[in-house]
Amino acid sequence: MAYTVNYSVIPLTHSGGHVGDLVAKVVDRVEKSGLEYRLTAMGTQIEGDLDEVLDLVKECERLVEADSDRFYTVLTMDYQKGKGGALSAKVQSVEDRLGHTLNK
Amino acid sequence: MAYTVNYSVIPLTHSGGHVGDLVAKVVDRVEKSGLEYRLTAMGTQIEGDLDEVLDLVKECERLVEADSDRFYTVLTMDYQKGKGGALSAKVQSVEDRLGHTLNK
Amino acid sequence: MAYTVNYSVIPLTHSGGHVGDLVAKVVDRVEKSGLEYRLTAMGTQIEGDLDEVLDLVKECERLVEADSDRFYTVLTMDYQKGKGGALSAKVQSVEDRLGHTLNK
Amino acid sequence: MAYTVNYSVIPLTHSGGHVGDLVAKVVDRVEKSGLEYRLTAMGTQIEGDLDEVLDLVKECERLVEADSDRFYTVLTMDYQKGKGGALSAKVQSVEDRLGHTLNK
Repeated sequence: MAYTVNYSVIPLTHSGGHVGDLVAKVVDRVEKSGLEYRLTAMGTQIEGDLDEVLDLVKECERLVEADSDRFYTVLTMDYQKGKGGALSAKVQSVEDRLGHTLNK
Repeated sequence: MAYTVNYSVIPLTHSGGHVGDLVAKVVDRVEKSGLEYRLTAMGTQIEGDLDEVLDLVKECERLVEADSDRFYTVLTMDYQKGKGGALSAKVQSVEDRLGHTLNK
Repeated sequence: MAYTVNYSVIPLTHSGGHVGDLVAKVVDRVEKSGLEYRLTAMGTQIEGDLDEVLDLVKECERLVEADSDRFYTVLTMDYQKGKGGALSAKVQSVEDRLGHTLNK
Repeated sequence: MAYTVNYSVIPLTHSGGHVGDLVAKVVDRVEKSGLEYRLTAMGTQIEGDLDEVLDLVKECERLVEADSDRFYTVLTMDYQKGKGGALSAKVQSVEDRLGHTLNK
């Protein structure tokens, strides 16, 4: 569970419907993976080990490949040996330091 | 308000205390800017026009420069002409398409 | 000169011609800035201090705003206090360690 | 060969020697993969299909995991259906549009 990632896909072309449909398909796939995730305006944040995360990214890329001839992906990954629960812990640690809750 | 960005700073060195203190200083600066923001595990997401966003990033970078000799920054920016409120709207549009609320 | 950045813009819409024309306009603007730069397949890499780099990014974003209603930007920034010439030095340091030249 | 990616790893901790040694180990692994690559100051750019690229990223992450307890990765991916050779072609297309060679 050492990885926390932010995964965002930007389709430049899309074979049918609205680009948002394709993004929703990807988020649906992440939700069904069973991994801990958070949907944000700038990507879907996911927790898991290396195989879990990259295998899920691979499946999502295949989904988008099926509907788009040109798309861009940004994946940022934060590895912390032996740590899980970073999706909540990283936010909590900032709130603890500032002594109040923040917009989340 | 056409920009929605995700801003994350990764200090490799830090002159005192814990790296988390430096990240908290940056989030504090964002909060005090008055711009719409969301704190997430993989960066702080901010809404604003180009000047507002890049001027705030510049101030935050100066804060980090004062405490770190080597740091890395990742800034992703989503521009939508004439649109504001994307921090909520982009998440809402996925939930509407999937017909249920998601982890946020 | 402490910043080395990779700047890439991904237009999702474009009012005329080919998306490549818009990318070429941005690279042209970077070239005319007089800052040290390298054009790569995944972005234009630029060296400068914070004001030089972010002011140039702001100008380029304005250029793209004039021709596109929706675009995505990825800016990664590597800050090294007191260091210049990193566009060459960072590559050279890897080649020195591996003891041979690499594809550049 | 439809993917062109930029892969950069930022070790925050490193068990021995200099962080540059760890980066050199990763670049060495990429070079030995046989995939088309370019070393740049802000990441190693690689061409391949989805399995080739993500499997290589997985191997490199394992290399870094062995020497670092905390590191950050930024992976940007440009998918163009049916296209190979983008490491050169994307740069060439900008030079053709501007009518002269650029710093590469």
